[in-house]
This record gives sequence, structure tokens and C-alpha cells, in this order.
Amino acid sequence: MSYNHKNVLDTEQFSKADLDFLIGKTRDMERLVEQNKAFGILTGKLLASLFFEASTRTRLSFEAAMERLGGRVISTVGFQFSSISKGETLYDTMKMIEAYADIAVIRHPVEGSSRIAAGAVKIPVINAGDGAGQHPTQAILDLYTIISEKGTLDGLTVAFIGDLKYGRTIHSLINLLRHYKVRLYLISPPELALPDSYKKGLEGYPLTLEETTDIKAVWDCDVAYVTRIQEERFPDHKEYERLKDLFKINKELILASKKETTILHPLPRVNELSTDVDDLPNAAYFRQARYGVVSRMALLCLSLGQDF
Amino acid sequence: MSYNHKNVLDTEQFSKADLDFLIGKTRDMERLVEQNKAFGILTGKLLASLFFEASTRTRLSFEAAMERLGGRVISTVGFQFSSISKGETLYDTMKMIEAYADIAVIRHPVEGSSRIAAGAVKIPVINAGDGAGQHPTQAILDLYTIISEKGTLDGLTVAFIGDLKYGRTIHSLINLLRHYKVRLYLISPPELALPDSYKKGLEGYPLTLEETTDIKAVWDCDVAYVTRIQEERFPDHKEYERLKDLFKINKELILASKKETTILHPLPRVNELSTDVDDLPNAAYFRQARYGVVSRMALLCLSLGQDF
Amino acid sequence: MSYNHKNVLDTEQFSKADLDFLIGKTRDMERLVEQNKAFGILTGKLLASLFFEASTRTRLSFEAAMERLGGRVISTVGFQFSSISKGETLYDTMKMIEAYADIAVIRHPVEGSSRIAAGAVKIPVINAGDGAGQHPTQAILDLYTIISEKGTLDGLTVAFIGDLKYGRTIHSLINLLRHYKVRLYLISPPELALPDSYKKGLEGYPLTLEETTDIKAVWDCDVAYVTRIQEERFPDHKEYERLKDLFKINKELILASKKETTILHPLPRVNELSTDVDDLPNAAYFRQARYGVVSRMALLCLSLGQDF
Repeated sequence: MSYNHKNVLDTEQFSKADLDFLIGKTRDMERLVEQNKAFGILTGKLLASLFFEASTRTRLSFEAAMERLGGRVISTVGFQFSSISKGETLYDTMKMIEAYADIAVIRHPVEGSSRIAAGAVKIPVINAGDGAGQHPTQAILDLYTIISEKGTLDGLTVAFIGDLKYGRTIHSLINLLRHYKVRLYLISPPELALPDSYKKGLEGYPLTLEETTDIKAVWDCDVAYVTRIQEERFPDHKEYERLKDLFKINKELILASKKETTILHPLPRVNELSTDVDDLPNAAYFRQARYGVVSRMALLCLSLGQDF
Repeated sequence: MSYNHKNVLDTEQFSKADLDFLIGKTRDMERLVEQNKAFGILTGKLLASLFFEASTRTRLSFEAAMERLGGRVISTVGFQFSSISKGETLYDTMKMIEAYADIAVIRHPVEGSSRIAAGAVKIPVINAGDGAGQHPTQAILDLYTIISEKGTLDGLTVAFIGDLKYGRTIHSLINLLRHYKVRLYLISPPELALPDSYKKGLEGYPLTLEETTDIKAVWDCDVAYVTRIQEERFPDHKEYERLKDLFKINKELILASKKETTILHPLPRVNELSTDVDDLPNAAYFRQARYGVVSRMALLCLSLGQDF
Repeated sequence: MSYNHKNVLDTEQFSKADLDFLIGKTRDMERLVEQNKAFGILTGKLLASLFFEASTRTRLSFEAAMERLGGRVISTVGFQFSSISKGETLYDTMKMIEAYADIAVIRHPVEGSSRIAAGAVKIPVINAGDGAGQHPTQAILDLYTIISEKGTLDGLTVAFIGDLKYGRTIHSLINLLRHYKVRLYLISPPELALPDSYKKGLEGYPLTLEETTDIKAVWDCDVAYVTRIQEERFPDHKEYERLKDLFKINKELILASKKETTILHPLPRVNELSTDVDDLPNAAYFRQARYGVVSRMALLCLSLGQDF
């Protein structure tokens, strides 16, 4: 195997071969979980779960992943530094953590923190979201979810709906999807369109891309990835009120689709994804959480160099 | 066995046969703990300990129970929702938890939350107190404490002292005691008497009930269950000051009893239960905490369908 | 062996023979950790990690120690009492904890709390710092660090630099060092000199002591133990500004030393210890964190009476 990533810091670090390997190993892990054979793989290993800002969903997902492997967790949420912005202080904290744990997962409000953290220590570091930066394990679990639900990615049409300008999740996922023959529909208000800088990163990759402001474009899509439109992005409250309902997914819209459109959402949702979608077989966003645990189980093992 | 409760949501769900079964299984669990044979029964199982409001005592009791069985815990205290009052948001949270854990314990400030939580998922849910609603595992451990201390419940005279109007603990315990041939003395200020709605729930059950405002009634009782009188219940502060000392248990009062009156208290106490009682053999309120752990160990196993 | 300490409450409780035994056992534990043989020694044992005030560094160190031994942890940070200053309430809390766990580690803002806690229960209690009182396990790990780095303590010259008046860490460590033939240099501003009460405690012991305000005294020392000078100790801010730079350790100072001066610091540091020291082989303060875990692993086992 060529996969050789101790740290998981961003989505750019992964080649297509890495992703193929990762997807395969995650599938292996899912099988082990189904057969109750995953518990014990990381016996004696200790994870430091370092959430410098609260993110209950992500924290519990990583901690569940570690516990399900038989590993142990030391955990801390929202702890304060005298000067959180100074790189050397995070450095000192990580030198302490290195003395305690075998691997660290770090969530931090400041972009680039996970790279500073990884640079301080010899133990593996996994980025669980650093500010406006990346959230690579979310992107990996999203990728795995689509492939698991659809069987393949090649030839699929995937819609991204909502805030494509600020949505960290979207940006990270695009960085992985670009390696596949995927047709991407970007459905958003013009104010929240995908920034050009991200589009440039797609040149030379098999992924193709179209933009629209029409939510009905979802009818041509195999997958619809829905994200929240945040009110605080709009200086004009009325403009927000007008737009939010134009980019809303509900049962009526989905049932009118000619395709079996699989619905994804990183959660939590507010009103951009109606609860009447929940009981459709297409609704994959709750299964997404389960894929997230097996995906992180695989990543923890790979980072620790523990075969399975 | 007829016992068939995946969830533990309230005290009404248990028949007399269920309670007999539960008491027996809790006794079995206590033996296993004494023989150091309980650890490992829940190896590989994962508990989500979800405390939407802080309750250190109850949280640590459940988490200790799970750890003592060899199970694992993911834990969260006081986490916030954008809209805690919306049922569907708790629904979404539980769909996430279902993907992570094998069983969930939930403490929530809103009455009825545990039922909404259980309705959202296939994994078992245990109510660890939901607002003005129920706290069924406290009642079960109280029941087990009395039977363990006294050998039986039938024929006993039990006093409830203090706030019988708002005391959730009392209300839940009465729902279990009504199945037994118990004589209940309700000792409280008239302002804090047991509401009629609860008395009506006792019709047709073997339990009988007498009310008094005289603390000396405790001298006729085999068990005295003491609860706190909260100052904030009284619009008139002077009235509170006058009453609080009339319903106080101390060593002098207990030693004057003709019976071996066993003292219980759900804790924490303030001044309604004097510390000079602590060294009496009758003082069972610290043993109560220990019964609580074995009782919750039994409930975790039963809810997970894990025999022991 | 004569070592017979269930509780670890202060540094006065240890004789020279106790310390020799402790150092030897900690060395044994370090070997077991290196050989991956420590995990499992405390299987089935449960630690209550009770941090009545936050101390992430110390909490994670103890919890890592317990998890690395295969034990389990129930944990709580910053929990509130209706009346934290009342001894009987801490008493009640501990009676609860005794019913849940096999051993407790307690951090508390009030001096003497750990002794009250230990007096309430039959399970072992380890003091993880109680207000202006003691922090004995920090002193033990410091002692072990010096001996590990230098091979011995006898004949060494050790400098203590910074706040010797209020520094709890310093006071606890002096209580252990006094048993050894150590020459102590106290380097501090006069305002922060070691109080006479501590000096009196050294009479009749082999340790000798000299005081100076000259940071260059460190050039004669085998070990320099650096601590922070806290701004809030000075009524006059200018006085603080003048002094803080006089008692600062940096690479230039250390490289000018005739000796291989080993640098220690309890961490976290602010600016009294320059980061340019970090890459010197003399910088032992990050290794100190690792010694801390093995030292606490040994203490947890000894307190639980678990041989290893």
C-alpha cells in the first residue's frame, strides 16, 4: 500500500490512490463492526480528545469510534488558554498531551491550529475542524456515505445546496470529489456561490461543475447534499427571509424527482431540510452518522499504524 | 419471565410482577458485584450519558454502573440546543446518538423529553429525570434499598417527610410502593401535602395512607424517607423559617422511636436531616448510593437484553 | 517494605525510606510501561476524578495514568456545591463517591479539603492540589524527574527560581528534597523569598540552603527549577515589570553555565522560561509530564494495595 498518512490535517493530503485505499479500509472496518470483531483492535491505546471549542456531535463520534475499538479516551471540552492565539502555547499543550496519549484529535477555533499541533509532537494528530479551515474527517465520511449508498461515485450527478461560500464542509468535500468522474451542480443564492479560489483548485481533475440558482436542478441529481443558510451571513434580514425558502428541501420536491435522489446533510439542520423527508428511504443523513463512526474507526487505526 | 421493558421511562410501566423480577435481578447483581463477577458482562457495549442539565450524583452513578460492568461511556453535560424546547431537535440529536451508542441515559429539564427521545430511536432509553416528570431509577433504587434494609416491604409503615407536593422523588416512589401492603404516613406542612391527583392513583392498590403534620408520627414508622423543604416554595419567608424546623430529623428524635426506624434521603440534604444521625446504624442514606449503582447495573443489563 | 500510605495528602507524610521505596516502584512502573506490561494491572478498578476547580493538566495526567493501567474513570470538572466551604457537604459528596468508586483524586480550591475528604471515606484519596495547601503528587513527580535525569540527588546543587513565597509546587518539593544531601539555591526577588516558616521545617535535615537575588547563581547548579512570577502578587505594576525580566531563563543564560544544568518547570509557563531553551538537551520540562504519568500510575497502584 502507498497510503502513508500519520496525521489527518486537510483534504489536500489525499491522492486518489489514498482515497481508494481509505474507502476500502473503511469498508473492512464496517464489516468487522457488523461481525462484532472491531472491539479490542486498539486495546491499550489512549486517545486525547481535545475540543478547544464545543462540538458535541464530532466529539462523541470520535470518542465512540475509539471506545468501539477497545481503546481509551481522555477528554476535555472548551478549555481555556491564557493566550489561545499564541502558537507556542498550543505547542506547550501538545507537548503535554504527547506525554499522556498515543493519538490526539483536535478541534480548535483558529484556522491552521491542527497543523501547529501536529508539528509540535511525534504522536498522530487528527484535525476535527479548525476554524474557517478544514474538517477532513467530515469530508471522508461524506465520501464514504455517498459511495456506500450509491455503490460508486463515477458517473454520478451530485448537488450541493445552500451556503457554498462559507460552508467548510462543502469545501472539504469538493477537494475529495474532484478525483472522481462526478458532475457537480452548485445550487445556491448568488451571494453564497462557491468562491473562484475553490473552482480553480478543480482544474485538471475529472470533476465537472455547473452552477444554478434553481432548486429544481435537484431533480437531475443522484445525490443532494444540503447545508444550512445562516442568517448572520446577510446584512439585510429581508433578503435572508426571501432566500431561505427558495433553497429548502422537502418531501414534495424529492418525490417529484425522476431519480432516486439520496439526501445528505452534515447536521444539525434547522429549516433547510424538512422533517417530512426523514421517513423516505432516500434520507441518508441519519445513516451518515453511523458511517462517520466506522470511518473514524478506520482513520484512528491507520494513523496509529494498527493493522486490521 | 414476563419482564419486557427495553426502556425505563416512568414508574407506571412496572407491574407488581415486574417489580418482583427487578428486585430479584438486582439482588443477583449485588451478589455478582460482591464476588467480583460483574465486570465484563457488558464488554463492548457503549452507553451515551446525556445530561442536558447537570446532575453530578445521578450521572456518576450511571457511569459507574456501566464501567463496573466493563462497558464504555461517552458522556456530555449541559450541552445546548439552538431550540431545546422543540421535540424534533431532540429527535435529531437522538438519531445521532443511535448511530453512536448501544443505550442512552437521558436527563432533561423538560417533562416528557425521555419519551420523545425513546420514540426517536431503536436503542433503549433510560430516563434519569425529566423536569417535573419522573425519575424512575431513583424510585427503583429506593424500593430496593427499603427491601434490602428491612428484608421485606409487606406490613411496613413508611413515613414520607417534607415536600410531598413538588418532590418528584416521592411521587415516583409512591407509584412503586402502592403495589405493596404498606402503610404510608405523609408528614408535611399542609402547604406541601401530597396533591389529590396522586392520591387518586392509589385507589384499588393494597397501600394505605394517613396524613399528619406531626413529625413525631415517625416514631411509629419502620422507615422514614426524608426530603428537603425548599425555601423558594414559600412566598412568605417567615412561614418557611417557622416550618423548616418542624420537619427536621435529628438523632434525639430517632433515638426516641420505639422502632428501629431506618432513615432514607435521596440526597443532597441541607438541614432537614441532621448530621448527628449519620453514625446511627439506622442511617441508610449513604448505603442508598451503593444500592443505586447495583440497581442501575441491573437495569442497564435488562434494557440491553444482556442476561446475568 | 515499610511504605504504608493508603492516602496521599501531603508531603510531610513521607519518610526518607518511603521516598526511596516510591522512587524504586516508580522506576519499576516505568519499565512496565516501556515493555507494554502495565495495561491490565488495575482492570476492574474505578477512579473518581473530582476536580472542584479546573486543572486540565493534572486531571488528564491522572486519568491517563488510570486508563494506562486498564482501570476506569468517572470524571467531573468544576461542579458546584450549594455551600462549598462547609466541610460536612464535602463529607456528603465523598460518602456518595465512596459508593461509586474504588479510589478518588481530588482537586479543591480550599486548603485542607483533601484531608476532610479522606476522613469521610474508607477508599483511598489522593490530593491533586487543595488551594494554598499542598500538591504532593507534583512534588513526587518532580523528585522522580530530577533523580531520573541526574541519576541521583545526593551532592546536587538545585536552584529554585521565581516565586518562592506563594509557589505551592516549590513548598511541596522542598519538603521532599530536605531528606537528601542537596544544596539549595533560592533565587528570587526579596518580595517573593521563601517564608521563614518553611525554612524552619528544614532544621535537622541534610539539605542546606542559600539565598540570592542573582539569576547567574544558576551557573553553579545541576538543576534549575523555574516557576512563574505572577503579576497579581505586586501592588505596583512597575515593580513587576522591572523584576520579571531579572528572573527569566533563556538559552543564552543556560549555555553560559559551566554545568549541564537541567531545566525543570511545572508548566504552564508564560515568559519566565524562553522557548529557545526547548531544543536544548537540558530542557527536561516536557519529559517531566511523562514522568508524571508513570509516577501517578505507581501511586494509584500503591494506594489501592495492588502489587506490580
